[in-house]
Amino acid sequence: MAPTSTEKIFSEFREHSVAEFFKKNQQMLGFSGKTRSLTTIVHEYVTNSLDACEEGGILPEVDIEIVEMDKERYKVIAEDNGPGIPEKHIGKALGQMLAGTKFHRYAQQRGQQGIGASGCTMYSQITTGKPVKVISRYDTRRITCEVSIDLKSNTPLVLNMVKDEGEFGHGLTVEGEFADVKYDKSSFGVYEYVRRTALANPHLQITLHDPEGQTHSFPRSSDRIPDKPLVVQPHPMGISTNDLIDFAHRERECRRISSFLQERFARFSAAKVDEIKALCPDVDFDKNPKELQWVEAEKIVKAIQNPQVRWIAPATDSVKPIGKEQIEKSLKNILAPEFVVVSERAPKIYKGGIPFMVEAALAYGGGAGKKAGDMSSSEVIRYANRAPLLFDNSGCAITEAVKAIDWKRYKLRNFEEEPLSVFVNISSVYVPYTSAGKQAISNDEEIIQEIKNAIMEAARDLQAYLSGIRRDHDKKERRKAILRYVSQLSHDLPDLAGKGKAGDIEKKLVALIETKYSSQIESEEGEEEAKSGNGKNGKEDEGEGEE
Amino acid sequence: MAPTSTEKIFSEFREHSVAEFFKKNQQMLGFSGKTRSLTTIVHEYVTNSLDACEEGGILPEVDIEIVEMDKERYKVIAEDNGPGIPEKHIGKALGQMLAGTKFHRYAQQRGQQGIGASGCTMYSQITTGKPVKVISRYDTRRITCEVSIDLKSNTPLVLNMVKDEGEFGHGLTVEGEFADVKYDKSSFGVYEYVRRTALANPHLQITLHDPEGQTHSFPRSSDRIPDKPLVVQPHPMGISTNDLIDFAHRERECRRISSFLQERFARFSAAKVDEIKALCPDVDFDKNPKELQWVEAEKIVKAIQNPQVRWIAPATDSVKPIGKEQIEKSLKNILAPEFVVVSERAPKIYKGGIPFMVEAALAYGGGAGKKAGDMSSSEVIRYANRAPLLFDNSGCAITEAVKAIDWKRYKLRNFEEEPLSVFVNISSVYVPYTSAGKQAISNDEEIIQEIKNAIMEAARDLQAYLSGIRRDHDKKERRKAILRYVSQLSHDLPDLAGKGKAGDIEKKLVALIETKYSSQIESEEGEEEAKSGNGKNGKEDEGEGEE
Repeated sequence: MAPTSTEKIFSEFREHSVAEFFKKNQQMLGFSGKTRSLTTIVHEYVTNSLDACEEGGILPEVDIEIVEMDKERYKVIAEDNGPGIPEKHIGKALGQMLAGTKFHRYAQQRGQQGIGASGCTMYSQITTGKPVKVISRYDTRRITCEVSIDLKSNTPLVLNMVKDEGEFGHGLTVEGEFADVKYDKSSFGVYEYVRRTALANPHLQITLHDPEGQTHSFPRSSDRIPDKPLVVQPHPMGISTNDLIDFAHRERECRRISSFLQERFARFSAAKVDEIKALCPDVDFDKNPKELQWVEAEKIVKAIQNPQVRWIAPATDSVKPIGKEQIEKSLKNILAPEFVVVSERAPKIYKGGIPFMVEAALAYGGGAGKKAGDMSSSEVIRYANRAPLLFDNSGCAITEAVKAIDWKRYKLRNFEEEPLSVFVNISSVYVPYTSAGKQAISNDEEIIQEIKNAIMEAARDLQAYLSGIRRDHDKKERRKAILRYVSQLSHDLPDLAGKGKAGDIEKKLVALIETKYSSQIESEEGEEEAKSGNGKNGKEDEGEGEE
Repeated sequence: MAPTSTEKIFSEFREHSVAEFFKKNQQMLGFSGKTRSLTTIVHEYVTNSLDACEEGGILPEVDIEIVEMDKERYKVIAEDNGPGIPEKHIGKALGQMLAGTKFHRYAQQRGQQGIGASGCTMYSQITTGKPVKVISRYDTRRITCEVSIDLKSNTPLVLNMVKDEGEFGHGLTVEGEFADVKYDKSSFGVYEYVRRTALANPHLQITLHDPEGQTHSFPRSSDRIPDKPLVVQPHPMGISTNDLIDFAHRERECRRISSFLQERFARFSAAKVDEIKALCPDVDFDKNPKELQWVEAEKIVKAIQNPQVRWIAPATDSVKPIGKEQIEKSLKNILAPEFVVVSERAPKIYKGGIPFMVEAALAYGGGAGKKAGDMSSSEVIRYANRAPLLFDNSGCAITEAVKAIDWKRYKLRNFEEEPLSVFVNISSVYVPYTSAGKQAISNDEEIIQEIKNAIMEAARDLQAYLSGIRRDHDKKERRKAILRYVSQLSHDLPDLAGKGKAGDIEKKLVALIETKYSSQIESEEGEEEAKSGNGKNGKEDEGEGEE
């Protein structure tokens, strides 16, 4: 029983790289299931292209080609017209985990971890043994090379580099070969991913060349380049003790905690510093932020969150929505529905300090909803910061919100079977995903409520539209039914009354019915407009909040 | 539109540490939700203690103390009698992510990633700003120190180290303070975790001191120290191209691919090498394994998986089950049920090369099942390699298997409402978890089927037991009903027939009924035994496989 082997047990002690870790835990990066793995690859490349174009102020053009090489083995070629990657960064950008430009920034972007594209490089390597081929064009340069990862050390291996000078324009091409993946047209597949990306990014021109040789083009419906992501100051209400310590110890300019608070956080005026000071009498606000201790930071955070201290809500200009017109154009362009409505709402705040904004749209009839033969069914198209969320549907706040709505109130008799697309996009610097796969938004009550309100706002317009159609439809049916009897009636009446001719009576009867029904339709339509105009009914809904 | 800013965009390019990554993605380590976070902490410490004791050949004694410091803020003290950690490894073992003894080993162990305990250190740090306190006792040494992680570089910070010489025994004590956690008695809480750990580890003596001052002791029911985890050679059928390349390039002794295959894999005889050679005519088996190319490895793997090549199944001695007797003792000890049955099955193979074994037990009546006042309900207690799986219940193969069973066939009229505990443990060198949280087993068809078979085997014995009880019970009720009329009948009969006395008749009638019912019970019990003895009925179940 003597623990003689303690040293021996630990003789096998080793350190491992993050690349080895993710090789063992591929599912954490979205590499689980053959279809999902291929979608993950396309997602990572498209996401990088969109972020890079936005940074460079370029209208994005992305071309995805998927070539079947063998059973469950495909080549993916992703090409964009973005700013390219400078020579010295190519290796790390595509061949090192946790390296990138976005990890520490407080701005609304799609990618964040600096893992995506390197994860694809790893997946190519471990399923086919091949590096990815890269062509980066920028300034007057074209760099061609192959990149793989030394998994043991998580360092990039760059091979066969060729450099050319000339007018090559700008952009990046990545080509990888992957096994254990599958192309299919399911709602989890690449085609659906590309279609949904096009829907939420009207400024994007994207083309998919599928393995069957078909080309699917989604032309842009808007020439407006989205604004660059804004790096914003965090709002005090969104700050934890640990964040405050991190910021303070990283501080290089401010010499005092008081000035550090004012300079680095939104809405932290000199008056606010005084308020906080008064609540933390034993914290020295004149000392260097580098020397801020945990207990002091804890007191400051508690004071910030004290209900007596009233904060101005954070500026919401960090939130970059798609825009009402853009969504409308895009849905019309791609779904060609009979009716579209987009709700336009102001940004809101959750957890007291984090701004977010919900955009919701409903597209009805025509190409909206899912089709299977003659049958239509509704679909919910979820986005976070314009990136489609295809997986983990059931755990998502958007799904929860859609389910919680009493669709019958909005004239949708059987929600599941309507030709309806429900489009929801959540924009925020900090989207609370349920996991690192970034496929579902966590069930925060404030967020669910706002999603519901946004959808219900759109649903009221859809209801008005449907009421019009339905009443129209009902009246046409009634008119048809009456007319069917008119002919018989007009023949029988002369026999009964003994006067006039059948033809005359029939004409008169038809004219009577036509007048009656058309005037009635007009007057009710007028009434309907007036109703939806004052919108009283609508506003009440929102107040109620269907829990 | 010129990409002038390419260099500028990339000026912010940075590398980040895996510790920073997990700080941002705490949920990946099980730190999501206050109750779950506290359970995760206890789980990591208990897991490490059990693995360490097993390595050291020590009968484990673990003591967990949880002290409430403030609202949602607790101190956790975990003490074991394991081999301790040598001085030079303390920092890395508790203050560096991805460092440990187990990452690369092919053996059945609980921990694997080298993240657990360091993850707790990180969580203490980011929620309370405090390091963890460590006391390691081994040989004649006692090392006391504090450990935290430099998150930016993922390196350990060891402070205030004190070294003592003397007779301190052996063991490790870790003490950490955590906020944003909650102690509760839900089925996701620490108490339930400890109880279930005790159930599956009869050799473990574990005590929990809860925040309310109560002490819960789970004494060991067995003195048998589990065998050390066996490091085994992988079976060829479980090997991917990437694995083969990895093994080949790491090879230091074998000079030829042919000898490398024979030496490093299970069941790879010289004759098998010849068979594979014949299927790969253009691969040179005499060259150094370090020079094995991807295409060659791919060909070898294809040949290995060629259905013409028949492999002997892998040895199953890597699989370390708990053992039938041990489970029975443990369930009796902790649940005190009326009836226990444990099914004993041979190890099986999944995916052609990975051995695994399912142990299933049913405990009925007494303390089995969940209790809420007078009401009982059934519970499913899931384990993988003896570690309780408390979360992600719905996605787990064990849950699937339990649901798929037609419990009515086994005399359980309403499965949900029976006083029943279903215990399932899966042992394998490679348990296919659905995610890195290691809380659910993926829905592999071969695994689900084996779990079902194991549970159904136990269910047949339970059925026999319940048939006995139920028949007994039914007969007692019938007897009671008849006896109720006997008294009245015996008074009325003399009036009708005019003979004998009421008392006499009653006695005779009662005697008649007693004889009739007791003999019937005996004979039916005999019949039942004979039935379950030949077991024909039972074996058929298994063949059927209720899909």
